[in-house]
Amino acid sequence: MRTLYLIGMGPGGPEYLTTQAIEALRKVDVFFILEKQGRGKDALAEARLRILDAWRGPGNYRVVKAPSPPRDRATEDYLDVVADWHARKAEILADLIAEHLSEGEAGGVLVWGDPALYDSSISILRKLQDDGRVQIALQVIPAVSSLHLLAARHAIPLHAIGGELLVTTARRLLAGAARGHDAVAVMLDSNAAFNTIDPEDFDIYWGAYLGTEHEIVASGPLREVGPALAETVAREKQRHGWILDIYLLRRGGAKPSIDPVEAGR
Amino acid sequence: MRTLYLIGMGPGGPEYLTTQAIEALRKVDVFFILEKQGRGKDALAEARLRILDAWRGPGNYRVVKAPSPPRDRATEDYLDVVADWHARKAEILADLIAEHLSEGEAGGVLVWGDPALYDSSISILRKLQDDGRVQIALQVIPAVSSLHLLAARHAIPLHAIGGELLVTTARRLLAGAARGHDAVAVMLDSNAAFNTIDPEDFDIYWGAYLGTEHEIVASGPLREVGPALAETVAREKQRHGWILDIYLLRRGGAKPSIDPVEAGR
Ligand SMILES: C[S@@+](CC[C@H](N)C(=O)[O-])C[C@H]1O[C@@H](n2cnc3c(N)ncnc32)[C@H](O)[C@@H]1O
Ligand SMILES: C[S@@+](CC[C@H](N)C(=O)[O-])C[C@H]1O[C@@H](n2cnc3c(N)ncnc32)[C@H](O)[C@@H]1O
Repeated sequence: MRTLYLIGMGPGGPEYLTTQAIEALRKVDVFFILEKQGRGKDALAEARLRILDAWRGPGNYRVVKAPSPPRDRATEDYLDVVADWHARKAEILADLIAEHLSEGEAGGVLVWGDPALYDSSISILRKLQDDGRVQIALQVIPAVSSLHLLAARHAIPLHAIGGELLVTTARRLLAGAARGHDAVAVMLDSNAAFNTIDPEDFDIYWGAYLGTEHEIVASGPLREVGPALAETVAREKQRHGWILDIYLLRRGGAKPSIDPVEAGR
Repeated sequence: MRTLYLIGMGPGGPEYLTTQAIEALRKVDVFFILEKQGRGKDALAEARLRILDAWRGPGNYRVVKAPSPPRDRATEDYLDVVADWHARKAEILADLIAEHLSEGEAGGVLVWGDPALYDSSISILRKLQDDGRVQIALQVIPAVSSLHLLAARHAIPLHAIGGELLVTTARRLLAGAARGHDAVAVMLDSNAAFNTIDPEDFDIYWGAYLGTEHEIVASGPLREVGPALAETVAREKQRHGWILDIYLLRRGGAKPSIDPVEAGR
């Protein structure tokens, strides 16, 4: 039997790995990396290698890479496009596993943040298992998600006492997902969707590049700080060529912890 | 200045700590523990000590304990009761800090799971800061939440592709919170609330005592496995005197990964 470890690496530097994840890293014979194309995408690949260097020692591990297939621009239905993209990634991964993972060996896939939030690795591997394409035992190692790092940086809970939290995407936020909710975490944005919705009485707690040396956070009443924050998003994206940002919209009186002007550095 | 580290310890054993959390543990001069009363509650206190022993060495750290105030039974308004309970915990913590944390020292509070989900420590400490009751720099260290461990154990994503996730409580589930949602994570149950709602076409992915030696997981269509699972909850609670359980309700075709009978061990 072969084992595949899907290892959550947390939202940034090597210090976010759990000791369980580090132990799993050390059991892996070969790591599989699908490299995304484009600026900033190599920053992510680099973060993976930095983690491997930190916990396995430079040169002390085997990596097999393949280019990640490009995703079609969503002129067609969004879900079809994503499903097709996943199918192509699954093909590539199945081939890599067949070619490079021997009986009795353990493979590894490093996942940004936690594997259960907005990451396709689990679905892809389960599909390969279900189709009988690969015979592997799948081990998922949980991790700190960017969601929890965001809350830690602002020193806030993600919801009101006894309340609830909606975790959603910018796409859904634009479709009205925040309506009727008091705490909404938004991922997969990068285009300041928060600045195009009705700000109502939301406070925003925003963070980008969390856990990296470019980390930047800001918060305040959405109505007041939204436009300046949207400029921050544009400027940071310009500067780095990419952005990873996440935010929490919360209703009800929590005080902004950081002056929005300060965020503009 | 004094620093207080709020350190997320993950959902169980010492292996869920990040290396960042371990580093923070090592900076702490004195740990504050509010001990809950009742069976099982000491199991939690014990888990804390096991983590401290593992990462600081037995006898190698200073702990100050106080009994956690009991929470009034919610005959009155739930939120009032909780607010009052928090206020009393805040009083106790403020006194402990004043008495036991000297200028220049670092205090530590270990939080189960991640500090931003259904834990009062952040709110309590922010309130003490805002009231001017304690002059401390607050550092929150994020962690793996039980939510992510649940997903890892079932090797499932927490939501559909491009979909959203509602994180809520059993109290709210009973009040209809799941309606209209495709992925609902429920915490703070322990009375099998899942078995008293309309099962619709939900699958349930359930786990108790995750990350501990009593860990138990089960999944299946809620309509079919709900009653047996409710019995499992009752039996486990009976056996241990307490239960910590969490579950995800998901709609749409994911196959149950574990036979419900198997869960009945
Ligand atoms: C493809 S998803 C992966 C999420 C990841 N599995 C997690 O648990 O954090 C990428 C999204 O996660 C958020 N994200 C991940 N890492 C981040 C970071 N270091 N700083 C800010 N946002 C981050 C952003 O919303 C980004 O659009
Ligand atoms: C007071 S809340 C604390 C949650 C914690 N901050 C976290 O992030 O997991 C306690 C609830 O978390 C869930 N929980 C925490 N640890 C758990 C575990 N090891 N196994 C199952 N559920 C757990 C249960 O739903 C429980 O009722």
